[in-house]
Amino acid sequence: MLDIITENFTNSTKKLDAILKPIEKELTLLEENLIHNILSGNRDLDKMVTYFFRSGGKRLRPAIVILFAKAISKGYLPSVNLELAQAVEMVHTASLIHDDVIDNAETRRGVLTLNKQWGAKKAVIVGDYILSRALGKLIKINTLAVEMFSNTLNELCVGEIMQKNQSYQIISLEDYINKSERKTAKLFMAATECAAAITKGTNNLIIKATRGYSLNFGIAFQIVDDILDFTGNRQQTGKPAAGDLKNGIITAPVIFANQQYEENGDLTLKKLIETKFRNEKDFKRALGIVMKSGGIEKANKLAREYVEKAVGYLDVIEDSSYKQSLIDLAYYTLKRTS
Amino acid sequence: MLDIITENFTNSTKKLDAILKPIEKELTLLEENLIHNILSGNRDLDKMVTYFFRSGGKRLRPAIVILFAKAISKGYLPSVNLELAQAVEMVHTASLIHDDVIDNAETRRGVLTLNKQWGAKKAVIVGDYILSRALGKLIKINTLAVEMFSNTLNELCVGEIMQKNQSYQIISLEDYINKSERKTAKLFMAATECAAAITKGTNNLIIKATRGYSLNFGIAFQIVDDILDFTGNRQQTGKPAAGDLKNGIITAPVIFANQQYEENGDLTLKKLIETKFRNEKDFKRALGIVMKSGGIEKANKLAREYVEKAVGYLDVIEDSSYKQSLIDLAYYTLKRTS
Repeated sequence: MLDIITENFTNSTKKLDAILKPIEKELTLLEENLIHNILSGNRDLDKMVTYFFRSGGKRLRPAIVILFAKAISKGYLPSVNLELAQAVEMVHTASLIHDDVIDNAETRRGVLTLNKQWGAKKAVIVGDYILSRALGKLIKINTLAVEMFSNTLNELCVGEIMQKNQSYQIISLEDYINKSERKTAKLFMAATECAAAITKGTNNLIIKATRGYSLNFGIAFQIVDDILDFTGNRQQTGKPAAGDLKNGIITAPVIFANQQYEENGDLTLKKLIETKFRNEKDFKRALGIVMKSGGIEKANKLAREYVEKAVGYLDVIEDSSYKQSLIDLAYYTLKRTS
Repeated sequence: MLDIITENFTNSTKKLDAILKPIEKELTLLEENLIHNILSGNRDLDKMVTYFFRSGGKRLRPAIVILFAKAISKGYLPSVNLELAQAVEMVHTASLIHDDVIDNAETRRGVLTLNKQWGAKKAVIVGDYILSRALGKLIKINTLAVEMFSNTLNELCVGEIMQKNQSYQIISLEDYINKSERKTAKLFMAATECAAAITKGTNNLIIKATRGYSLNFGIAFQIVDDILDFTGNRQQTGKPAAGDLKNGIITAPVIFANQQYEENGDLTLKKLIETKFRNEKDFKRALGIVMKSGGIEKANKLAREYVEKAVGYLDVIEDSSYKQSLIDLAYYTLKRTS
């Protein structure tokens, strides 16, 4: 389906482990610390908290934080950056837990969501708890870190509300990108901007580069996530098929599919969505339209544009294995299957 | 039912408005700012956020913050304290919204809860959003403020999980007080300690006094809240009758009632609770036992002890109308009906 033939083709086919090899040690340390530092001493709470952290996750946000810090400071990693990497994964985790409550999701990473395993009520508390621990870490970094994450959380909530209120409506591509920025990209941006700001050897040009890379990377990441909702291997994504469409969350493949249909004067897809799929047959029909339209390919093309834009921002950063990993990571996101 | 005949009797019967008269202006300003400062620009989000703030609330936490600041600094109120007062009410509000999701509550302050009005999912987001805005305010105060609130949120979550896991179990009075500290008193304590720390003219003795007052005030406040679950006028509390008991949340009146029964070798109440009230008749029987036992009176006596302990801590603070309000407020909490 994807057909990228560029000079980065070989890079893009690298496995994630290989891409993250230069920061393998740091990521192992992060993994240990993540579990160790989050414990509350309350057995029941700790059981739920570790359940989620142990269920996997790619740790992309910490990886980008560490890669940027090492790329800027010629391989040296201040411990404060490792703290930041942990905090950002904790904020991300808390947001996923609350998202699953909000979307009433059944599975994530191939296991039952916290809300399905222990109920929505406990899941709300666990999310709040992880957020409070993340906050405790951020305040030890600096004021800017807290400020950035407070703004990001703020944007995330507005993004979620936008999504809830736009459900079963064909939104414009612009609104979709705007929502993706708020829901996903801003957290990547806050994390990397903060990483750059606390790393020696940084300057305004570099900070601009981290912002540009992570914002565009984050948007691409969200687009691919939305494509995987349609094309992903269920065992790998750990999520149900076309769950977003079923829940009325309109993403890039659907927007492009509908655009194509509407240009031909065909309002079938739009009507099926706006009537909230009166039955399973309606839903399957809509899904069929999206799959056979060029929507998925167009969404892939859009994601690739954002990846290339992201990578372009890295020009001002000196070459190193860490910078190469950031490039590879961006292309990897287009090829990922979960 | 309550029968306090002390030198503070007249004070304790003062109406809340009269008690807060010395900071009337500040509270009016706070009310305006609370609504004004929380807006996101997203119409739907703002509708939900203002719905909750406009539904009332006694603003006790901001009042105590302002009273302490003015009592310490001889009537002068630094604007940073007003910011803190707003932030603490925001944190409190966010926790109430999530609590209502957690408890699946129907009404609060006499109106439908956010989760009943717009669904649990949106309520989770609104809570997160308000928390993010509170955080944005706290970080502008200082690092200590964020640290304290992060710890408090942490304790709050542990308290909530403890409560969930202890449901339909007769807990010890010690566990009940411990849970009440985490769930309620620590937020009062963080707010007032922070208020004292940022106010000129403070010293360690005063900080110790603010901690002692607010911790004990907070525990008393929670005990009275739990008594009102049984005795409160439904229109005034805006909550259903004996909702806590029904949900298996075991509070002071029940603990004392059961103590009395168990001492006489009667395990009826314990068994009714531990079998989760198999039917409405079982529940009504348990409720009857609590009401006719001396449990409510004993709980009142305990609350009064905490109030007196709280007031005792104020000795090191110079007399003023603000200090008098803090004393009156503590006694008022015993007499409050909502």
